[in-house]
Amino acid sequence: MSGGAAGRGGQLTVVGLGPGADDQMTPQARAAVEAADILFGYGPYLARIPPKPGQARHPSDNREEIARAGAALEAAANGARVAMVSGGDPGVFAMAAAVCEAIEHGPAAWRELELEIVPGVTAMLAVAARCGAPLGHDFCALSLSDNLKPWALVEHRLQLAAQAGFVIALYNPVSRARPWQLGRAFELLRQALPGTVPVVFGRAAGRADERITLTTLAQADPAQADMATCIVIGTGETRIVPRPGRTPLVYAPRSAAAAP
Amino acid sequence: MSGGAAGRGGQLTVVGLGPGADDQMTPQARAAVEAADILFGYGPYLARIPPKPGQARHPSDNREEIARAGAALEAAANGARVAMVSGGDPGVFAMAAAVCEAIEHGPAAWRELELEIVPGVTAMLAVAARCGAPLGHDFCALSLSDNLKPWALVEHRLQLAAQAGFVIALYNPVSRARPWQLGRAFELLRQALPGTVPVVFGRAAGRADERITLTTLAQADPAQADMATCIVIGTGETRIVPRPGRTPLVYAPRSAAAAP
Repeated sequence: MSGGAAGRGGQLTVVGLGPGADDQMTPQARAAVEAADILFGYGPYLARIPPKPGQARHPSDNREEIARAGAALEAAANGARVAMVSGGDPGVFAMAAAVCEAIEHGPAAWRELELEIVPGVTAMLAVAARCGAPLGHDFCALSLSDNLKPWALVEHRLQLAAQAGFVIALYNPVSRARPWQLGRAFELLRQALPGTVPVVFGRAAGRADERITLTTLAQADPAQADMATCIVIGTGETRIVPRPGRTPLVYAPRSAAAAP
Repeated sequence: MSGGAAGRGGQLTVVGLGPGADDQMTPQARAAVEAADILFGYGPYLARIPPKPGQARHPSDNREEIARAGAALEAAANGARVAMVSGGDPGVFAMAAAVCEAIEHGPAAWRELELEIVPGVTAMLAVAARCGAPLGHDFCALSLSDNLKPWALVEHRLQLAAQAGFVIALYNPVSRARPWQLGRAFELLRQALPGTVPVVFGRAAGRADERITLTTLAQADPAQADMATCIVIGTGETRIVPRPGRTPLVYAPRSAAAAP
């Protein structure tokens, strides 16, 4: 059935919508969304896209990634031009990996489909831009979700990241089902890093309802974060530059001293 | 003199132009560049922007970051609307940190200036999008340049990143002045990771002269990289999905086994 999919012109584009502000979505992403017959994606991301006559949309819950990827691939295999939308960048804790996984384990015909991935501005870049350059030297990005990996691995990675002197960007810091993990992560990091290390809670960066909060590791309160927050944790080298009448700049110096 | 700068409306915007393709530059970045009286930046990035009558441009060498930041701040303090352009995202191994550093160590008036940072799609996201989802789980981004940090620190971070199971994105892998560092990095990583680990060399992702090469850690040849290459090094869990008539997909599975 889907063997003739390529011939029928079906294709799947996995699109990064960027952090949320309209003018931070690339023209490539906008064109990919406009060209689609069918849109798939997590409801709140689909809600960012104005309705278009004749264009179907299939919003879904955020935990159904593999099922959603499979449904999108199936529709593409049946000849449709399908766009799967993600917030931020689709390759960073978002739908591109789920689509690749579905292709690996799905029918052979899915490997023949035209697949395009359209990158976007991921949350940590948008948050960083709003407060200076906290990612200005080596950094890592870590999902705090233990839905798909053991919590022990998260702790292991946090400890090594702190030892390495990486700035740490935390994605998926909390959810209803994961209430204690962020507090535990801060505890662990307080054992490894000075309490003065700057911490930025960034929510909806660049949007009207933006909330960017600067605090320290010692004072970081997990209750400040929700599902849509990206947290940037500096290092002992991160600088804070006070500015009269403006929010302070937070940045990671480009130069670093010797290895510990 | 520059005490009255704010009153004269001077401002500095640090703009991420994205990885290079025109349709991967955000509308926000395009608007910021268009609104500027004066453009500063590394020559090849400025060359991407069509000339505009009345708009001055100051191209510079890529090693003069602090001097360039100072000149841009000085112009803004004198009342100009200045844009400083970076490739990719300005906060990832680019100009935003240099500007913050110049502000911290410069005249007090620079702290009063209006400063905006416009994020962009950074190279590793563009490279990842062209080959699947190799950054699909926890990852780190590391500059291989030892111009501003000791080489021992780079080695320390590479070793810890491999131990942590982070996918590693390498920026600034080589330059004329740094010919051996990438080879040494591969050597180190071969001691810590299986030789079968996928490695992607990504150059000019999304542009007409794009060159994306998939190899393994065992076979990775430093000669495949130049200054403009971003290298993504997978982990033991990275998957390769062959596709008939298409390039293979490379992705990091969303789920992970126990900590080592």
